[in-house]
Amino acid sequence: MEAILYERFDVLDHGFVRVIDYMGDDAAIVQAARVSYGAGTRKVREDRALIRYLLRHRHTTPFEMCELKLHIKAPIFVARQWLRHRTASVNEYSARYSRLDREFYVPDADHLQSNPSSNKQGRDDVLTDEEARQALSRLDWISTRAYGVYKNLLNEDDTGAPKDPDRAGLARELARAALPVNYYTQFYWKIDLHNLLHFLSLRADAHAQYEIRAYADVILDKIVMSWVPATYQPSATMRWTPLRSPQAGSPWSSACWPARRSIRRVAGSPSASGAS
Amino acid sequence: MEAILYERFDVLDHGFVRVIDYMGDDAAIVQAARVSYGAGTRKVREDRALIRYLLRHRHTTPFEMCELKLHIKAPIFVARQWLRHRTASVNEYSARYSRLDREFYVPDADHLQSNPSSNKQGRDDVLTDEEARQALSRLDWISTRAYGVYKNLLNEDDTGAPKDPDRAGLARELARAALPVNYYTQFYWKIDLHNLLHFLSLRADAHAQYEIRAYADVILDKIVMSWVPATYQPSATMRWTPLRSPQAGSPWSSACWPARRSIRRVAGSPSASGAS
Amino acid sequence: MEAILYERFDVLDHGFVRVIDYMGDDAAIVQAARVSYGAGTRKVREDRALIRYLLRHRHTTPFEMCELKLHIKAPIFVARQWLRHRTASVNEYSARYSRLDREFYVPDADHLQSNPSSNKQGRDDVLTDEEARQALSRLDWISTRAYGVYKNLLNEDDTGAPKDPDRAGLARELARAALPVNYYTQFYWKIDLHNLLHFLSLRADAHAQYEIRAYADVILDKIVMSWVPATYQPSATMRWTPLRSPQAGSPWSSACWPARRSIRRVAGSPSASGAS
Amino acid sequence: MEAILYERFDVLDHGFVRVIDYMGDDAAIVQAARVSYGAGTRKVREDRALIRYLLRHRHTTPFEMCELKLHIKAPIFVARQWLRHRTASVNEYSARYSRLDREFYVPDADHLQSNPSSNKQGRDDVLTDEEARQALSRLDWISTRAYGVYKNLLNEDDTGAPKDPDRAGLARELARAALPVNYYTQFYWKIDLHNLLHFLSLRADAHAQYEIRAYADVILDKIVMSWVPATYQPSATMRWTPLRSPQAGSPWSSACWPARRSIRRVAGSPSASGAS
Repeated sequence: MEAILYERFDVLDHGFVRVIDYMGDDAAIVQAARVSYGAGTRKVREDRALIRYLLRHRHTTPFEMCELKLHIKAPIFVARQWLRHRTASVNEYSARYSRLDREFYVPDADHLQSNPSSNKQGRDDVLTDEEARQALSRLDWISTRAYGVYKNLLNEDDTGAPKDPDRAGLARELARAALPVNYYTQFYWKIDLHNLLHFLSLRADAHAQYEIRAYADVILDKIVMSWVPATYQPSATMRWTPLRSPQAGSPWSSACWPARRSIRRVAGSPSASGAS
Repeated sequence: MEAILYERFDVLDHGFVRVIDYMGDDAAIVQAARVSYGAGTRKVREDRALIRYLLRHRHTTPFEMCELKLHIKAPIFVARQWLRHRTASVNEYSARYSRLDREFYVPDADHLQSNPSSNKQGRDDVLTDEEARQALSRLDWISTRAYGVYKNLLNEDDTGAPKDPDRAGLARELARAALPVNYYTQFYWKIDLHNLLHFLSLRADAHAQYEIRAYADVILDKIVMSWVPATYQPSATMRWTPLRSPQAGSPWSSACWPARRSIRRVAGSPSASGAS
Repeated sequence: MEAILYERFDVLDHGFVRVIDYMGDDAAIVQAARVSYGAGTRKVREDRALIRYLLRHRHTTPFEMCELKLHIKAPIFVARQWLRHRTASVNEYSARYSRLDREFYVPDADHLQSNPSSNKQGRDDVLTDEEARQALSRLDWISTRAYGVYKNLLNEDDTGAPKDPDRAGLARELARAALPVNYYTQFYWKIDLHNLLHFLSLRADAHAQYEIRAYADVILDKIVMSWVPATYQPSATMRWTPLRSPQAGSPWSSACWPARRSIRRVAGSPSASGAS
Repeated sequence: MEAILYERFDVLDHGFVRVIDYMGDDAAIVQAARVSYGAGTRKVREDRALIRYLLRHRHTTPFEMCELKLHIKAPIFVARQWLRHRTASVNEYSARYSRLDREFYVPDADHLQSNPSSNKQGRDDVLTDEEARQALSRLDWISTRAYGVYKNLLNEDDTGAPKDPDRAGLARELARAALPVNYYTQFYWKIDLHNLLHFLSLRADAHAQYEIRAYADVILDKIVMSWVPATYQPSATMRWTPLRSPQAGSPWSSACWPARRSIRRVAGSPSASGAS
């Protein structure tokens, strides 16, 4: 984990995840579990097997003994989904007090999904290259125009000085009302490992929106793997599978999903990652 | 409280607060306090005095026994401040799955504050009528244009039918990236009374942004007053005062604020309600 | 639910669960889910199927819209396990301020489990009738003696008057130090349905200690069933099964448990309910 | 803080507090505050003044960026008060799975308070030396007897081997029912600094029971002072004062308390620390 402290993992066109600090590791989980479940467990189980056992039996409190603190830069609509998770500590950049930069998210053409109700012609639900080009161009245009309005409302030029010294601009907290939700925001995010695994089980899932999944995948596969390798392995394979794949023969097995990992191999392609 | 159940209190230009459900009242607080603090308290104190005593000594758990469930419609930037409070249950309208309406917030000219760094000429920090008119017009223009782009990206006409049957539109979860944060969202919000009072102490305060304060004032002065009158009275006068107004003679008294209620009389005017 | 409001369900020898208040029901869950997941869901699914879908996909926030408030009387060691669940509001009877009654828990002979390390003779791990009788008699004796010490420390007779008017007794908050953890305490407990289901999934489970499971079973099978029948059905059968029974063929399937309901048929018998 | 990592601070007769781990410090608070409140604050304020400002204006989220992890050993009745604070992570030693040691709390004669209703003769509410000696002797006696019953129920001798190889003992989870609440338990406790300050404001207060206050004082004056000195200073003097000392002239000023620190000078003496 020391190796990736302060490292910046780029996500989307302007976003990133950076590890700021952490507390605890696999050993801290094992230590806490042994306080709770007694010395008797020591004889039988190795650390790695104990962690697997804890995850499987939902003994979640030992995982709360580890903390991770990240610096995140993400579009506002991603941050909105992200901050619906209430069990974390957050300090977000405030557009009441600070100026926002001209940085907004425009998807790659590869990650566009179509609107299921947008045509009735039985066409495949993928945008053509031309449709994609036009959509991205429109999104870029409105985002750029919005920033022009924002700066105009503030009456500030590019250096932050008054554009027109004879008039008053609008307060930042109101001028930002003009900016779309694809503008980037930044926040510090501190969460314990138990709640992080829960966040990841929802946001690294194939049903999550592609944009937040891009962040969750980096946190899971780069940071969690490096930080708590003994926890990473079973949580990545075990925790999601049973929830998504009921037992054969159960009343709802006909509607069951393939295991999460197999879905994720095609994640990002329009057909697999669409919101259902 | 029965009298205002389902009543809709209008806030801002298109927003509202509506009471959906509640549990408990002043009597439930008193009942819970007597379980915790014993029969001995019964003799000496009336209910109203007991509630005042609980608030003053920060015996907060009895207030958690009451729950309020509201239906809120507010601009996204207000919802963003609102949902930073983590001790509530929320179900928000999802722009991933549903179409957003063409409803956005444009402030009244009376509630505009100026950008302190927007001019260096020593002018008063209030917008002139003409500056206000221009600012509101720009905000209205970009918001309207953004909706046009949104519908175009979706490839939907006003009825929700495909605009151009030969092309595919963009998925809702991506098309909404074009909409600014002054668009309205809606959510159910359930919170217990203790956490509600904490929310109100921060958001009905003169330092809160005017737009969220407008909601907090309605919740405090219409709903809390009607729901738990014995709690409303001391919480509205007592809880904020000591926090904001340190004792005379203390090291920070020179910077102290007047009591909250006197500030609020002028709340809404640019000079009093500006973010400091 | 109205039918069981204020009804007292007896549990263990002196304990009970009583419904004090509640907010919301199955319909409130459905209403909240439709706000979040949009009008599109309305067409396809009936309420009951929607609730099943929400549980299965871990869309938990709609279940937070329902609240239940109970009055519990339970032994201190049960309350200690109970109050480790942090997502509830609690007002507990305080032994600092109030006198405790002479009420303590002694198990039924049917619910005794043996100490696995207490003999090395390969005997069956069940107490004989005579061993059970002696154990219960010792527990009764020490509990009764402890109450005598408690009253003596307080210098109070049975009416609460001073036993010896010439001496001072010890403060209640210290005198209670003499009482064992099988003495009964009481508390109000308010929790939302999502967190209640989580509590029940752990405490109505065959691995929970028999004494707390007795309470959890009453809450699940009497109260939840009456309150939110459409939620009760799938949560009782579905939620626990996948967590406890990994897929066939997985690396840990050899150690997997039978489904929870089949275990519970024998719950209460010494061999089935032992802590493993 | 490094200097006191793993150091053991003795509390009461057999208890302790030990620092296991921590994350963040005063600088982390300042860093998080500057993300939220913008670069503008940098110019005017030094770190120490900024922390004071944050505390005074209840900007609490930056304090959540720091975490403290302690190992606590305390009597069960103290742990019960302690764990009512729900915003911490806990792993407690389990008497279901592990044997409890013969360690129980008996107060110093200096920290005994009398029962206000124990005599009606107008005597001073302090125990005489003889009354104190007798009370402590009774408490010691019942606690020792309880342990004998506990071991007998387990059918274990001092080495943990079966006392009588021909009979079965009772399971640990049931045998512990015989032990009084002055027996010691142990737990790991992890909490962020904001919630720790809240805990301390209630438990280092003169109205808290002496036994938990003894722990809170050590955490405040030894650990917090060493860990976050710039936060320690104002929080120890400022945060409690306004809450406890309403303004002169307010309707309840006649009942107001002296500032906390002056009360605490006499804390521990029977008259000052009694539960009111």
